[in-house]
Amino acid sequence: MAATPAPGRVGDVRRQNLALVLAGIQRNGGATRAQLAAESGLTKASVSSLVTDLLESGLVQEITATRDGERGRPGTGLVLNPARGVLAAEINVDYLAVGVLDFAGELVFHETLERHNRGSRPSDLMPLLLAMAERAATMAADAGVELLGGELTVPGLVDTERNVVLAAPNLGWADVRLSEELPRLLPEAPFGVTLSNEANSAALAELWFGHGADHGAGHGTNGRFRDFLYISGEVGVGGGLVIASRLFAGPQGHAGEIGHVVVHPDGPLCACGGQGCLETFAGQEAIYASAGIDRGSTAKPMDELLSHLAQGAERAVSAVQQAGHYLGIGVASTARVANISAVVLGGHFAALEEWIAPALRGSLDRHAPGLIPPENLAFSGLGRTGALRGAAATSVRRILSQAYELIP
Amino acid sequence: MAATPAPGRVGDVRRQNLALVLAGIQRNGGATRAQLAAESGLTKASVSSLVTDLLESGLVQEITATRDGERGRPGTGLVLNPARGVLAAEINVDYLAVGVLDFAGELVFHETLERHNRGSRPSDLMPLLLAMAERAATMAADAGVELLGGELTVPGLVDTERNVVLAAPNLGWADVRLSEELPRLLPEAPFGVTLSNEANSAALAELWFGHGADHGAGHGTNGRFRDFLYISGEVGVGGGLVIASRLFAGPQGHAGEIGHVVVHPDGPLCACGGQGCLETFAGQEAIYASAGIDRGSTAKPMDELLSHLAQGAERAVSAVQQAGHYLGIGVASTARVANISAVVLGGHFAALEEWIAPALRGSLDRHAPGLIPPENLAFSGLGRTGALRGAAATSVRRILSQAYELIP
Repeated sequence: MAATPAPGRVGDVRRQNLALVLAGIQRNGGATRAQLAAESGLTKASVSSLVTDLLESGLVQEITATRDGERGRPGTGLVLNPARGVLAAEINVDYLAVGVLDFAGELVFHETLERHNRGSRPSDLMPLLLAMAERAATMAADAGVELLGGELTVPGLVDTERNVVLAAPNLGWADVRLSEELPRLLPEAPFGVTLSNEANSAALAELWFGHGADHGAGHGTNGRFRDFLYISGEVGVGGGLVIASRLFAGPQGHAGEIGHVVVHPDGPLCACGGQGCLETFAGQEAIYASAGIDRGSTAKPMDELLSHLAQGAERAVSAVQQAGHYLGIGVASTARVANISAVVLGGHFAALEEWIAPALRGSLDRHAPGLIPPENLAFSGLGRTGALRGAAATSVRRILSQAYELIP
Repeated sequence: MAATPAPGRVGDVRRQNLALVLAGIQRNGGATRAQLAAESGLTKASVSSLVTDLLESGLVQEITATRDGERGRPGTGLVLNPARGVLAAEINVDYLAVGVLDFAGELVFHETLERHNRGSRPSDLMPLLLAMAERAATMAADAGVELLGGELTVPGLVDTERNVVLAAPNLGWADVRLSEELPRLLPEAPFGVTLSNEANSAALAELWFGHGADHGAGHGTNGRFRDFLYISGEVGVGGGLVIASRLFAGPQGHAGEIGHVVVHPDGPLCACGGQGCLETFAGQEAIYASAGIDRGSTAKPMDELLSHLAQGAERAVSAVQQAGHYLGIGVASTARVANISAVVLGGHFAALEEWIAPALRGSLDRHAPGLIPPENLAFSGLGRTGALRGAAATSVRRILSQAYELIP
């Protein structure tokens, strides 16, 4: 029989209650102790005692709360301490990036280094990333933000337990162990540095800051998505599934890999070893090749593609339409398997929205009519920092869930 | 904020503990009170009190336990009461079936009526099924089994909250409400009759009685699967996903629909309204048509197909190989999305194993090498009663989880 939780250990209950109160403060910045008690079902005395510990830990701070629509004298509200933060780092096929997110949710520093990383060895990249992380840590210190932990996100399948990149075919990485490198990104941080998949990070960013967030209208959708597929368009095509407002990662953490859904039985060979994968039709390199853009003669192929499209160049238009057509097949199959009826497209798919959306819509209507209603087909507004923000926000949540480690 | 459980309500705790003890008895028939206490982490006094209630409810009974490898005098063990049971009913495209499963897990009665149900109205089918259910209830009563509840399983997407068949294209059903018909299948039963999807029921049967069950070797696999895709081969092609030994049903309960994964962009139109779905290549009708079997001239087309295959008839062999090829593409895409590395095939795929397996294996190796290791590609040994047994066992579990309703 599987281990069951030992009943009645006070330590565990207090840990859970700390996490409950912190989640309440995160969701509802400025809440008073009384409001946190009402929300959580805990007693006021219990909340007060937990808040005393949290104030001492430095994770939260008090503010004077004067909330709309409330009467009487202002109470003391609680917010996550904006003088605490996390580092996020990203390795992608054509850039490296780092960022600092404070506990107020603001990206206070962000640096991107454009670089062709295909075929790079980890020993080439990690020193560059370490130098960027050091700069970020210095900037954070100058801004008065103490970094408690971080996350590195990569375009490949990862083993988060062992900190191994299992397969990142577009980097040329297989079974790359990063357990020694990760702590070096942030040597002093009490909560260390974790590893994640870039498409999953971007999906979580979309959940927390984009189409999944509770900001009502905007972004062209009918409100927020609780269940959706996020599709990351980079050199590779990745995907992340959000179900019931949580990442659905699957048994090994690799669910949602739409880039390797087979969209044509006789399609091109793929970097993954398969044949006919969506990535071979809709990844950046595939679109550039099909649009006749010579990668050797241009440093900014996406700008060139967009300029061809703006001029109505037939080859470019048809390359993007073909990508949209196969994207629709991949979305149809993925949505059937995961029982999803909403999609958010990011990366180059968002940049190409104007040209790719009609072909994608037509393909969906042909292969899975009614499955993804028009208002549920959305493009990300988060831009290139999506994955970085998602990784950072994941790190914040991890730290808040382990807050008890800071409490004596 | 979402509702949080009210802390410390004794009623809830006792309900949970009842379910915990019942699950222990189900998993480990013959366990003593002391063993149940050790397993569950509850005190012996608490287990004894819960067991007293459960004996009174009639859900469990005492036996003399003399378990292997134990010393001392035999204790009193507890088992689920085999004089309690459930009804399962199945509507499929070419048959109706009912069965009675007792709480000891034995299928004590089972009846199948071969019948072409394509295009049947619910008002044609339900009277037939009601008559079969009545016979089953009589047989159960004669065998001394009291039926406490049941489940009807159908080849389509269902809304289990409202008891509506949303879409069963191969029956020709759309938005068929069964909330009045379901209780009539078992008018006296305290726990009523629920509705489910046939492929999900068969997937659960595979989990509990087939390749997911803890029976070590056998069935040609390296032990049990905790995460797998079950593929139901009937007139339609359905699928069910088991992740971490639980059904992964997705946001609306329709996950795993591999039959409508697109395997060829220019493939045939499908009953679902799409194009190029796996079902149009690997469903029974598709294979018969491709094998040149005239459905008008034979009552048992599968027998005829098997006889052609046994004679090495080229057209039949190539029809089944083509189905296997496209099945491999559908499995590759589904496994990528759900992060699954094991597959169990049932229905006609199991009957055709000898001829379909090599083509399926070849297709998987071409489109997703390494994704499904050879030992993880398995065929169901449960035969035609799989879905029925899965639906029945689901009903038993539901009743055990609601056991508190029988306790004053």
